[in-house]
Amino acid sequence: MITLSSDFGSPYPAAMKGVLRQRTDADLFDLTHDLPRQDVRESAFWLCQLLPYWPPAVHLVVVDPGVGTDRDAIVLRAGKHALVGPDNGVLVPVARKLATRGRGVGSLECYRVTESTGEPTDPGTDWPLNPASSTFHGRDLFAPAAAVVHRRGISSFQDGSGFEPTESVVDLTLPRASVGQTSATGELLAIDDFGNCITNIPGHVLEGQFGSSVEVNGEALPVERTYATVAPEGALVTVGSHEKVEIAVNRGRGDDRFGVETGMAIELAWETSPKR
Amino acid sequence: MITLSSDFGSPYPAAMKGVLRQRTDADLFDLTHDLPRQDVRESAFWLCQLLPYWPPAVHLVVVDPGVGTDRDAIVLRAGKHALVGPDNGVLVPVARKLATRGRGVGSLECYRVTESTGEPTDPGTDWPLNPASSTFHGRDLFAPAAAVVHRRGISSFQDGSGFEPTESVVDLTLPRASVGQTSATGELLAIDDFGNCITNIPGHVLEGQFGSSVEVNGEALPVERTYATVAPEGALVTVGSHEKVEIAVNRGRGDDRFGVETGMAIELAWETSPKR
Amino acid sequence: MITLSSDFGSPYPAAMKGVLRQRTDADLFDLTHDLPRQDVRESAFWLCQLLPYWPPAVHLVVVDPGVGTDRDAIVLRAGKHALVGPDNGVLVPVARKLATRGRGVGSLECYRVTESTGEPTDPGTDWPLNPASSTFHGRDLFAPAAAVVHRRGISSFQDGSGFEPTESVVDLTLPRASVGQTSATGELLAIDDFGNCITNIPGHVLEGQFGSSVEVNGEALPVERTYATVAPEGALVTVGSHEKVEIAVNRGRGDDRFGVETGMAIELAWETSPKR
Repeated sequence: MITLSSDFGSPYPAAMKGVLRQRTDADLFDLTHDLPRQDVRESAFWLCQLLPYWPPAVHLVVVDPGVGTDRDAIVLRAGKHALVGPDNGVLVPVARKLATRGRGVGSLECYRVTESTGEPTDPGTDWPLNPASSTFHGRDLFAPAAAVVHRRGISSFQDGSGFEPTESVVDLTLPRASVGQTSATGELLAIDDFGNCITNIPGHVLEGQFGSSVEVNGEALPVERTYATVAPEGALVTVGSHEKVEIAVNRGRGDDRFGVETGMAIELAWETSPKR
Repeated sequence: MITLSSDFGSPYPAAMKGVLRQRTDADLFDLTHDLPRQDVRESAFWLCQLLPYWPPAVHLVVVDPGVGTDRDAIVLRAGKHALVGPDNGVLVPVARKLATRGRGVGSLECYRVTESTGEPTDPGTDWPLNPASSTFHGRDLFAPAAAVVHRRGISSFQDGSGFEPTESVVDLTLPRASVGQTSATGELLAIDDFGNCITNIPGHVLEGQFGSSVEVNGEALPVERTYATVAPEGALVTVGSHEKVEIAVNRGRGDDRFGVETGMAIELAWETSPKR
Repeated sequence: MITLSSDFGSPYPAAMKGVLRQRTDADLFDLTHDLPRQDVRESAFWLCQLLPYWPPAVHLVVVDPGVGTDRDAIVLRAGKHALVGPDNGVLVPVARKLATRGRGVGSLECYRVTESTGEPTDPGTDWPLNPASSTFHGRDLFAPAAAVVHRRGISSFQDGSGFEPTESVVDLTLPRASVGQTSATGELLAIDDFGNCITNIPGHVLEGQFGSSVEVNGEALPVERTYATVAPEGALVTVGSHEKVEIAVNRGRGDDRFGVETGMAIELAWETSPKR
């Protein structure tokens, strides 16, 4: 199984998928091609919300503002999954998450994709890569590499030419919130298609606050289990499906209501004994 | 076969699909994730235009403004199809349509999804559901239920824990037009991606009017078999692929041209002897 | 294998795909449903960028501003591929490209879809087509025809009722640029989702210019191998993945920056000895 994620929109994913289909009979699943465009950090956040719900697979990910520069193509083996994409950090947070799940797997191995292999060029064979464009490595570099990883197997893809172990991949850590007794300081990690605003503040800070209210950047908002417990157009604070604090508007867009964008600081303050 | 329809846009469907893939080898087909956001009625209309073209399947549908409230999750068995989604009416019109098709099937059975089953939690087994978020029941409640329905079979899914018959599902009937001798009164049911405006007035009222004109909310418009029979940017009345009266603009957007939106009243008036 | 491409957006492709699934077990792949709306020429360009990356398949293509008029439905056999769609030229450029690839295939054969076949109407059989709407031939005409082509086989679909050879399909040739010693005159063929502006000027005119600059409609722009070699928001000229000259902005939209739209003239001028 190979999954595809990118910030390509349409129609470029169809070329990438054709290249995969030329080289493998693997089941292909488009996860999303609407990752935040050229935004490595928010894309990394979304991958953490998606890939852990999938069975072991080769995950092809292309969010690649540095396409055509000398950044490497890498493969991360994380538990029973393999991630293929650019060495810009986008794969790292979800790889850590996948590697630490399951029954004592825990391993995270990094490989660099090399292009010089001396193997034949027939599309039915693995390597070397076709002559690559400088602007569409999803089609010309990452998809062929993902096909090779799938064909050889997630546990054994490196036993052959084209991949070499590396220690020095670009790291990326999603920012962590600072949580105190009556307040938390974090930032807005992502805004979803509904306009819900997802912070990096862990949801457990709202325990005991449901039915009460907290201050978000100075404004008191009700703390609710879900959207529809406030009136339409009403604002609320909740714990989203990603187990983070989320500010939202029932049947409306939170991002418009709060005037926020990704990366902004979020201050949450509450009283120790719930009130309203 | 399991189909997926929602108003999620991107990327949440990928988590829902991963949950399905974790639990079943069924063929998965995304129908649309761009149903009108949190609009139960227009979504119900679109489902009526899509699902009847599919072979028997489990249809997972999530348009759920009441997520996390005490509305039930339900399964409707309609002919050889099963529909899984929230109990807010969105499944009902298409279920009635599917139940009354085919060779004397006609049955429409309603089940409520229950969560307390005492069965093991291993993802390889059916029940119980994982601890659910309050905000993403597509992933945590409906998708697991759809996987169970598929695994047990559309004709026998209720023979086991997790589902109980119910009579009291939320009903929804799409509004019907009133048709007279020389006029019809209806409303705008939906606007498609092209800007074509779909009413609930049955197409047969235009019989004998092609090549003539009718009045739509007081404006005379030509009645044509299709768009390209008027000049580019020209307005027209036609019978859409859903067999309803549609007002449209050739190579343009009808909704902009007519200044209409879903739910508005549409008055159609014609003369008994065609003229132009 | 059947691929689907259209300008439908959402949700109409789901009805078309259901009709295919009713009639065939072929693997179905959505390529894109966001082809430029009712723009036959730019859609033809994009098909040239997508289909050649796929293995032999039946390619269903619906960009059809003339739906419901007397334009024919056609099938083009191009090499080992078959293309099914409207006779408006949209299939022709990619068919020529597919026909001239491979080991001496080279053939391009044209067939018209006829509807009168006298065969039974059961959906499990091939013909005739269901009664067609006038406004959704993707669902009612092209998809059933594609299912028949797939079932009978790309090399033998015409050996049976429903298709007759024709010579007179509507032709379409994408405009060619005029290339001189120090300048080239072309036009903007397409704008992609990133805002990159794709001309019809062949990329080889930029050989020897990388690291230098050229004039684009009078403005000097750096010639680069890829986007990230200029600063964010910086403009550049490059050779895109389609091997054409492309004007773009690193991490920004070229179309906004240059104020261009599809079809505009593009003048490229350079000096014979690179400078900067």
